[in-house]
Amino acid sequence: MKIVSAQDFDLRREVDYGSPEQNAAVKQIVQDIKHTGDKALLQYTKQFDGADLTADLLRVTDKELQAAYQEVEPSFVQAITAAAHNIRQFHEKQKRNSWMDLQPDGSLLGQIIRPLKRVGVYVPGGKAAYPSSVLMNVIPAQVAGVPEIVMVTPPSTGGKEGINPYILVTAAEAGVTEMYRVGGAQAIAALAYGTQSIEPVDKICGPGNIYVALAKREVYGVVDIDSIAGPSEIVVLADEHANPAYIAADLLSQAEHDEMASAILVTCSAQLAAAVASEVQQQLETLPRQHIANASIQNHGAIIVTETITEGIDVVNRLAPEHLEIMVEQPMNYVGMIENAGAIFLGNYSSEPVGDYFAGPNHIIPTNGTARFSSPVDVDDFIKKSSMIYYSKEALLANGNTIMELARHEGLEGHARAIAIRLEQEG
Amino acid sequence: MKIVSAQDFDLRREVDYGSPEQNAAVKQIVQDIKHTGDKALLQYTKQFDGADLTADLLRVTDKELQAAYQEVEPSFVQAITAAAHNIRQFHEKQKRNSWMDLQPDGSLLGQIIRPLKRVGVYVPGGKAAYPSSVLMNVIPAQVAGVPEIVMVTPPSTGGKEGINPYILVTAAEAGVTEMYRVGGAQAIAALAYGTQSIEPVDKICGPGNIYVALAKREVYGVVDIDSIAGPSEIVVLADEHANPAYIAADLLSQAEHDEMASAILVTCSAQLAAAVASEVQQQLETLPRQHIANASIQNHGAIIVTETITEGIDVVNRLAPEHLEIMVEQPMNYVGMIENAGAIFLGNYSSEPVGDYFAGPNHIIPTNGTARFSSPVDVDDFIKKSSMIYYSKEALLANGNTIMELARHEGLEGHARAIAIRLEQEG
Repeated sequence: MKIVSAQDFDLRREVDYGSPEQNAAVKQIVQDIKHTGDKALLQYTKQFDGADLTADLLRVTDKELQAAYQEVEPSFVQAITAAAHNIRQFHEKQKRNSWMDLQPDGSLLGQIIRPLKRVGVYVPGGKAAYPSSVLMNVIPAQVAGVPEIVMVTPPSTGGKEGINPYILVTAAEAGVTEMYRVGGAQAIAALAYGTQSIEPVDKICGPGNIYVALAKREVYGVVDIDSIAGPSEIVVLADEHANPAYIAADLLSQAEHDEMASAILVTCSAQLAAAVASEVQQQLETLPRQHIANASIQNHGAIIVTETITEGIDVVNRLAPEHLEIMVEQPMNYVGMIENAGAIFLGNYSSEPVGDYFAGPNHIIPTNGTARFSSPVDVDDFIKKSSMIYYSKEALLANGNTIMELARHEGLEGHARAIAIRLEQEG
Repeated sequence: MKIVSAQDFDLRREVDYGSPEQNAAVKQIVQDIKHTGDKALLQYTKQFDGADLTADLLRVTDKELQAAYQEVEPSFVQAITAAAHNIRQFHEKQKRNSWMDLQPDGSLLGQIIRPLKRVGVYVPGGKAAYPSSVLMNVIPAQVAGVPEIVMVTPPSTGGKEGINPYILVTAAEAGVTEMYRVGGAQAIAALAYGTQSIEPVDKICGPGNIYVALAKREVYGVVDIDSIAGPSEIVVLADEHANPAYIAADLLSQAEHDEMASAILVTCSAQLAAAVASEVQQQLETLPRQHIANASIQNHGAIIVTETITEGIDVVNRLAPEHLEIMVEQPMNYVGMIENAGAIFLGNYSSEPVGDYFAGPNHIIPTNGTARFSSPVDVDDFIKKSSMIYYSKEALLANGNTIMELARHEGLEGHARAIAIRLEQEG
């Protein structure tokens, strides 16, 4: 791994907005689904996924779901159930109540907090179909109280069947209420506008390829969407007490995701820097996804050596990484100084995969420096708030003149008159 | 006002994404500011606002601020202070604490909640400079704990001075910490990328013209932005007990905003429908902004008569209005049935201007049907969350095998090994 100065390093990469051809193709697909519904949906599913379906075959049946449970190993079901339990427990703590502020003049002001009514979750086909991502998208919606959670995923084997049984089982365990075998931009458009077979949703989330990402941007406003994730990142902040083999393993676990992934060590120990660099080389040799991890380490990996831990913290705050591991002797001492990081893993035993799969916090975390202003997925992403204003007669009589002054100052006489007419008739 | 069927009416309008020329112009401005900073900022300020400034004149001085306080009426300062007090009090109740979940195995899981560090608020020039909007954008950020709140507003009279003193005073009362006399797309780009004179921010909010809106879209991702508001809307849900003169005044207070604004009455009383239609005509006659209000009422206003209140509630939920007034005999009975509405005003004395200016809840509320999935501005819009994971050795030893099974199932051996190496060395 190369050793670079803090100034020379930035996690941020250009966002991929697709080619003009990809954008045009997506716009066309979205329009076709909007105007002809199932007809276009079935046609694109045949064209892109090679599955020649009819409308009545779009929805996954209970029978298929039961068959999927037979197909997967019991140990997988146990592992997914345990992870789902932890994730649910952590997200339960994020739930909030509607509240009211009761004023002495009889007025009531408040915020009403409600779940979204219907949410769509996109799950990619093939190798990118990660059961853990299904849990992380679906459980927060379910905990928020969303009554209808719809999963869409492409028919992956080109036949009429062919949805990964692990995904089906995970979706059922997480709380999905409807599943459809459609994918790509056509699935996103179907969720946004609805078709004869699929009712429209209020929000669409979940990862996908560039066509899925562009389709989500295209329908944003008609429905809400989640943010579009960049390549994954880890920054490890370590002092001389850290274990170089653990750090190397954690850096590689990030690097194996994707050639664009980024794995950075920030340390105040030159000795640790050298030991980690050597460990990374050694561990790379036997890693199955060696080629991916190596490309990531070469192009987007780095070791940054600082004078002090404090200086290292400045680097971390500037990078605003998706994942931060703090492997120093007293990690708790530094948490309060971390201003920008999506998820913070503390100490020797909090390896990132603990959070990726199991501990409970969400693994969908802001990338590309956006932890400066955004947050991991949580229950808040699946609720909406309404303000409530009940003003008493007493309150209106006491404050009406002030309200009218403010309205008239803005040249909005109609606003002032809405108050004036009440003061005249009730005063 | 025309009486229409519920089926024939929809609040939603196409969103204005600007002409290709406007988009190209904004892209150019953003690139110029990104690459040459103050130089481009001063040049565009001269070109578009006619103000020939130097860099040292961009920032509003304390002296100017003091002069502004001398210029405005004491009654205005009192009114703004009273409104700011109420808005602050309501938003204070939205603050949340970081939290931890302490597990019996010694692990700690939590969410760290922090304010954004630096926020930019855009305030339009000229007649669209509403002091109330300054309060509604700035106070939630201030209550969230944002230490640096920067206001930008165009120099409005074409000279070196020329910022509306009411805006300056309101910004100071709300908690703005820096003010710059720049506007348009160039101001948005300066906030996003920073210049020699203006440090970059983490989030940009506040209304503006189409160039401001396009610039915000252009810089989204580099910084966070607020949502882009459509024309304002009110729906009044009323029964036969409601006062037609109050309803008409409230509908007109919305209609006077903008020819594109929408004012709708939904009622189960044909008699009330007729009375409101007649009142609207009568009150329109003496309204200063009669032409605007009349165009709005003609083109985007309607009275929808339903059989029952329940049917009226279905209409409301479908429309998902920005503002909803419930003027029925027992308004509290119906709040629980409202699924989609940005702000809900209850009873005869909760006229919309009460909320626009004074009561406390935010007046920046989702438009265009987006109350189905989004919320009024609040303190949550100015915080970010980080997950915290401290896993104990005991927890890792107990759960390591399950985590490895999930990782290996996804083909991510590097993830499994990050756990395995610890189990080997510590187990």
